[in-house]
Amino acid sequence: MLRTHTCGELSMQQNGLQVTLCGWVQKSRDLGGMTFIDLRDRYGITQLVFNMDVNEELCKTARNVNREYVIQVKGKVTERINKNLKIPTGEIEVLVENLEILNASETPPFTIEENTDGGDELRMKYRYLDLRRTSVRANLELRHRLASLIRNYLDGEKFIEVETPVLIKSTPEGARDFVVPSRVHNGQFYALPQSPQTFKQLLMVAGFDRYYQIVKCFRDEDLRADRQPEFTQIDCEMSFIEQEDILATFEGLVKHLFKEVKNLDVPQLPRMTFAHAMKNYGNDKPDTRFEMCIQELKSDETQPAFPSGKFKLFDDAEYTAGIVASGCAAYTRKQLDELTDWVKRPQIGAGGLVYIRYNSDGSIKSSIDKFYSSEELLQTAQRMGAQKGDLVLILSGQKQKTQKALSELRLEIGNRLGLRDKNKFSSLWVIDFPLLEWNEEAQRFHAMHHPFTSPKPEDIELLSTQPGKVRANAYDLVINGVEIGGGSIRIFDKTLQSRMFEILGFTPEKAMEQFGFLLNAFQYGAPPHGGLAFGFDRLCSLFGGSDSIRDFIAFPKNNAARDIMIDAPSFIENEQLSELGIRITGH
Amino acid sequence: MLRTHTCGELSMQQNGLQVTLCGWVQKSRDLGGMTFIDLRDRYGITQLVFNMDVNEELCKTARNVNREYVIQVKGKVTERINKNLKIPTGEIEVLVENLEILNASETPPFTIEENTDGGDELRMKYRYLDLRRTSVRANLELRHRLASLIRNYLDGEKFIEVETPVLIKSTPEGARDFVVPSRVHNGQFYALPQSPQTFKQLLMVAGFDRYYQIVKCFRDEDLRADRQPEFTQIDCEMSFIEQEDILATFEGLVKHLFKEVKNLDVPQLPRMTFAHAMKNYGNDKPDTRFEMCIQELKSDETQPAFPSGKFKLFDDAEYTAGIVASGCAAYTRKQLDELTDWVKRPQIGAGGLVYIRYNSDGSIKSSIDKFYSSEELLQTAQRMGAQKGDLVLILSGQKQKTQKALSELRLEIGNRLGLRDKNKFSSLWVIDFPLLEWNEEAQRFHAMHHPFTSPKPEDIELLSTQPGKVRANAYDLVINGVEIGGGSIRIFDKTLQSRMFEILGFTPEKAMEQFGFLLNAFQYGAPPHGGLAFGFDRLCSLFGGSDSIRDFIAFPKNNAARDIMIDAPSFIENEQLSELGIRITGH
Repeated sequence: MLRTHTCGELSMQQNGLQVTLCGWVQKSRDLGGMTFIDLRDRYGITQLVFNMDVNEELCKTARNVNREYVIQVKGKVTERINKNLKIPTGEIEVLVENLEILNASETPPFTIEENTDGGDELRMKYRYLDLRRTSVRANLELRHRLASLIRNYLDGEKFIEVETPVLIKSTPEGARDFVVPSRVHNGQFYALPQSPQTFKQLLMVAGFDRYYQIVKCFRDEDLRADRQPEFTQIDCEMSFIEQEDILATFEGLVKHLFKEVKNLDVPQLPRMTFAHAMKNYGNDKPDTRFEMCIQELKSDETQPAFPSGKFKLFDDAEYTAGIVASGCAAYTRKQLDELTDWVKRPQIGAGGLVYIRYNSDGSIKSSIDKFYSSEELLQTAQRMGAQKGDLVLILSGQKQKTQKALSELRLEIGNRLGLRDKNKFSSLWVIDFPLLEWNEEAQRFHAMHHPFTSPKPEDIELLSTQPGKVRANAYDLVINGVEIGGGSIRIFDKTLQSRMFEILGFTPEKAMEQFGFLLNAFQYGAPPHGGLAFGFDRLCSLFGGSDSIRDFIAFPKNNAARDIMIDAPSFIENEQLSELGIRITGH
Repeated sequence: MLRTHTCGELSMQQNGLQVTLCGWVQKSRDLGGMTFIDLRDRYGITQLVFNMDVNEELCKTARNVNREYVIQVKGKVTERINKNLKIPTGEIEVLVENLEILNASETPPFTIEENTDGGDELRMKYRYLDLRRTSVRANLELRHRLASLIRNYLDGEKFIEVETPVLIKSTPEGARDFVVPSRVHNGQFYALPQSPQTFKQLLMVAGFDRYYQIVKCFRDEDLRADRQPEFTQIDCEMSFIEQEDILATFEGLVKHLFKEVKNLDVPQLPRMTFAHAMKNYGNDKPDTRFEMCIQELKSDETQPAFPSGKFKLFDDAEYTAGIVASGCAAYTRKQLDELTDWVKRPQIGAGGLVYIRYNSDGSIKSSIDKFYSSEELLQTAQRMGAQKGDLVLILSGQKQKTQKALSELRLEIGNRLGLRDKNKFSSLWVIDFPLLEWNEEAQRFHAMHHPFTSPKPEDIELLSTQPGKVRANAYDLVINGVEIGGGSIRIFDKTLQSRMFEILGFTPEKAMEQFGFLLNAFQYGAPPHGGLAFGFDRLCSLFGGSDSIRDFIAFPKNNAARDIMIDAPSFIENEQLSELGIRITGH
């Protein structure tokens, strides 16, 4: 070892001890006859002292050592005069007797400090320097800790980790696959897995009983913000269970993580049906850190709140609903205009915003007071649960689109009211998802979850009459409005699985070609089984209190799926293309 | 839960208890009024009993249940009359009161038993059924156990697991990369990593200090027996260390595994230089479970053992050496002929085999006794350490080729003498590898390990004069003649790294293009570092007592890199090709 201790472990216990430390120069200060260097490694920072009176030459060498130089020092631990009780090593310093420069450093392109002066692109390009910053490193240490905790929990529950293959078969269903041309079998391709779904089901058929894997998955999508082409899943599957067993097992995991990492005792997770979530939050992953539920004023299930014949927009709308922004009646005209512009942005997509101010003095002021009387507006506000001082915000239009916009508005108001505290956690299960969703473009049903999800037994008879009404034995774990995981009970019956493929528009031949191995496997005694998968990157960012998964990935790609540090993807040699039997044509 | 217990946990402790079990029908026997079913799950086998007198209908149902049906039974635990003390559940049986068939099964294409009647191809195609066999499942349970033990050990040593990217940049150095065409950047490709080598070095530059990862790697090679296109590495790296520290840390890991898995206390691992291994075993991964070292009779370092001018083959040979097959003097002529044929096979490549029988009565019989006197032959045999009753086997020819053949012959004789017991383990470090090896075809030096391996400081000056003589700070862990892992101290100095690239025939431009990010990183304070990687599949097969890594991979590919279960690789849609901007041309 080139050191006797790390930079994070010396304290008064080692006072007087001769030590050798290695690390990076965080900063250096000259105070007349003394030079101080903060020496940094993964474990902490230790202050080094060089005294001009004691060793002039050494002190001069120390003065020439720049930021990020890698040095080795030998010296004696001594008590500090000015103690820094904020860091574990703050009571001591090391009086250096010998200094060796192990490696010099150019001046880094940005400062290696918490408030760095480096922009996103620059820090991505020099990711190995960005990773030196304490917070970035702490993110990856948290990731490691979470992975360990998850593995230990699942090991304790008799799950075994099985590695499934990365070079698999392409399936046109779902998102786009990354493919890998085969050199040995020219013209043929492997695909990288979007998830190990079929393999984990085969492991259940194989009798593995409880499987998990922390595993890289791949999806060739046009990247939205904070999506990565490669991402990590905690993939799990169990046999001889019902939905309750899966919820109980993974609720246990979530509680374990909150207890170990956050020292929080999480009570039993509430359950919410998909229908309830959509109606009250406009969203199947509600942020339940705060209420502010959506109040329907007109929908297929609700009597219209406003008298008809007065305001064409409301009369014509399929759906009208709103939220009550608590204590926001004092919003200025300017703030309301700005909020109106906000909901009209294409990402939100509302046509406009109706407000009703229920002022503290009991008076009503509304953007629609030329259509409705104060009395009518007051009644509506009160029906929605508004109190004096509150602001009612209403959107109207096509149901699905308006629900989505209201959901966004609710979150935005939640943000503005400080109701989305990163240190507060609200977890729940969303259950009873629809089995199928209608795809307008393709004019056929798609699987909401995936084609292997089991319908609820009591809904199976609806499959032939009202497939859109069939609920699935599917569930999502939602924390703070983020879908952390999801899964389902699987179909384990060959006939029902074939029927599902048929409903999804597969010909029997196509189903056989794509999933023949699974259908075949189901002939040889498949057990009842189900499972779920967590998004590990997302879970890390949640526990780390960040919105960005990129902060929790050692070497992430940018929004154009490019690794700008190593410059990938890149061109390859013609010889290699020719071996693979492919030629580049461009679009 | 569809069960109260598993099939592996009931004993006399539960006698009289009402239980529900689920599992697969292993076999069923009718004994007149009684029917017995062996019910199997991952955890074991439990005997079920159905009594014709008690419940005729139930018993009849039980008789119609075939092998591999998935069933659920309810019943009472009772003491068996004929106990089977070989299995944990052998003292009890379950008197069934209720049976539900959860899923029927076709007759499997091969028997799900230890001595299955299924051939290799068939078992690969129905891998999910092969995985039901106890020994195959046990292999994957062992793999899981090893991974857990490794992670726990490394966690305890302050290593943190960091996931490095799978979609990286192609490098023409080394083996062939699998590549992934980019849709977003048409004409450009990602590559799948052959190892996370450069990333782990960047993590050291980033100050991560101790890194590991159990990680999939990929190599597009023409597969030799027991190679897989995707394989798993235990990849490790440490900073501020010297070679000794790495050997000590991972020797600790090896000891930990042997203790936990085999209950063996492994003493300190011996070290052997590459030169010593080549000279004495003809191989840089010697199987040291047995001695039978190679005895040089003529080489650049050894005085010829045979007088010259008598036998042209020996006179002309660059190298002559042999081994002593203990107690084999009684080999028949037929056995010797067969052994001669064996060494002449192209895989071994020897021109012929010379033997000297040192018979029990002290007499000598040799295939070259027309060239040398009995006295001369006896002297040679004795010089080689032969005793009465031993057989001396000698090969002669070009040094490298003959060493390789002798190494194979030594292993073969070891096999025949039963000296390579799978339950005996002999581990060692092979050290002091050459830095470079001459490549005849390319007429230039290649890196023996990889281009980032550090030369021994004391040998650096030889780099310009005799590069072939430079030794590296590189080391391999060898167990039972298998290279389980290997690594090196890395170059951490930009200038030395550039010089290495130059020696390896990279122009500065090419080096920058391929490894610019690493060379750049080295400008910003790279610490001294080094590491190693273990082949995890190989490690599992070693601990599992098998020669085949395939037995320890859940879904392996065959020798043509094909997954015959899912039928991958396969053709993809033209639309997908066109999105990727590539066209298939064939060779």
